[in-house]
Amino acid sequence: MHVCIVGLGLMGGSLALALKRAAWCTSITGVSRRPETLAAAAAAGAIDRGLTDLGQGVKDADLVVLATPVRTILAQLVTVGEHARAGSVVLDLGSTKGEICRQMARLPLHVQPLGGHPMCGREVGGFAAAQADLYEGKTFVLCPLPRTAASALAVAREMAEATGSTVRLLSPDDHDRAVAAISHLPYLVAAALVSTVDEGGSSLAWELAASGFRDTTRVAASEVEMMLDIVMTNRQAILDWLKRYGGQLDALAATLELEDEDGLHALLSAVQSRRRNLRL
Amino acid sequence: MHVCIVGLGLMGGSLALALKRAAWCTSITGVSRRPETLAAAAAAGAIDRGLTDLGQGVKDADLVVLATPVRTILAQLVTVGEHARAGSVVLDLGSTKGEICRQMARLPLHVQPLGGHPMCGREVGGFAAAQADLYEGKTFVLCPLPRTAASALAVAREMAEATGSTVRLLSPDDHDRAVAAISHLPYLVAAALVSTVDEGGSSLAWELAASGFRDTTRVAASEVEMMLDIVMTNRQAILDWLKRYGGQLDALAATLELEDEDGLHALLSAVQSRRRNLRL
Repeated sequence: MHVCIVGLGLMGGSLALALKRAAWCTSITGVSRRPETLAAAAAAGAIDRGLTDLGQGVKDADLVVLATPVRTILAQLVTVGEHARAGSVVLDLGSTKGEICRQMARLPLHVQPLGGHPMCGREVGGFAAAQADLYEGKTFVLCPLPRTAASALAVAREMAEATGSTVRLLSPDDHDRAVAAISHLPYLVAAALVSTVDEGGSSLAWELAASGFRDTTRVAASEVEMMLDIVMTNRQAILDWLKRYGGQLDALAATLELEDEDGLHALLSAVQSRRRNLRL
Repeated sequence: MHVCIVGLGLMGGSLALALKRAAWCTSITGVSRRPETLAAAAAAGAIDRGLTDLGQGVKDADLVVLATPVRTILAQLVTVGEHARAGSVVLDLGSTKGEICRQMARLPLHVQPLGGHPMCGREVGGFAAAQADLYEGKTFVLCPLPRTAASALAVAREMAEATGSTVRLLSPDDHDRAVAAISHLPYLVAAALVSTVDEGGSSLAWELAASGFRDTTRVAASEVEMMLDIVMTNRQAILDWLKRYGGQLDALAATLELEDEDGLHALLSAVQSRRRNLRL
């Protein structure tokens, strides 16, 4: 099994390290725009060969994994379709799946595409942040297309399981609606929180900020380019959730405005119990 | 120096452990409604003597520390005023300072009151969660009243520094406005987020929830009774911040609605850089 990983940032770099640790494949070719990244990945033993040319990288691979930001994946799929050899499996790790899977449906029929999303992001990126155990114990979503052969799905599943993840099969739309709620909405909520305290202009507030503020706003430090790709390719689902969220926030504010302590108590108790029961 | 700590939950219990570790005082009397808590604190070496009666507990103390929820402190101050001996320092650890300091101003003139707030909460409570190093490296806000003697402030400062905290002097109003922004607003923001995903009715979303959702909503698991006291005694400042927050959220949603990618990029970049520069 020859694997080509395109993009050696946090996700792609960690995948390469995990597959090497599991000795899952014969060789790994890494593709990156930046020669320094290829050198760092080779030095860390994550890849056997580094290339800056995408077409050259994918042409001998049995499995191509696209680990770049969502809209870079959309653009790269065209080149992959032109160079991937017959029978090769093409998997991506993008954070939204609808647009990518629709684009994958247009790939030449001799390649086997499917969407993927390992649920293990961090707010830091780059190969320097990569770690072999990033995927361990995490959920790895796979979105096979109607055209995806069972054998191709099996290859992707084996690879995901080799990293220590548990596979969950989902439709692109179900995936996108769910991650809009538990990932993209929290990002915007955290961003608005940082922005509010910043615009409030109180240096005292920043000075007193403790662990509660730190955790609630952690994801607001995420890579902007990556998040912008995510948000722009999942706009409608995010807007729907933002509207629901505004409603919940208004309900909380109304109890406070009216000094409706019983109502506030009921809301906060339900939330506390829901959050404490969250398996994480 | 004889210290009486009223309330042996996370804050009071951790304070007792920290003062014992620093050997800062001759003896510590713990006051709690629950005999089991007193027994646990005594067994852990946090207190020398445990009492369920507040008046009896405070009457021999040089320093009384009220470490109960805000509105319990408000009620207990009356009893403390009746029993505390002349010259004793009365400090509280409540999370809002305006109402408490106004109530403290009405204490008999022979006691020395001042407000306090160590910036080191957690979402778990009770003596079982107490730890001697909870205050270490944290900011300990002190709010002396106009009537507070310099010697009383010095006692409170020495005690705070003995726990490893750094003291910050603030007016009750400045404190309450700042913590509304960096603690109470994040709590309600997190609560609304949990509530939104819960009401959204998608079990899939809960199943996929990963570290981003976990961190953004961590504070929503806080003790409800404690948070209700905080929120109800800092209503106006919180409502002001909620309004500003709603404005920031609307601005984000508008860029998304209008597909104004440049505007969204500018907003998210400013937020990312602000959050990454946060010293925490």
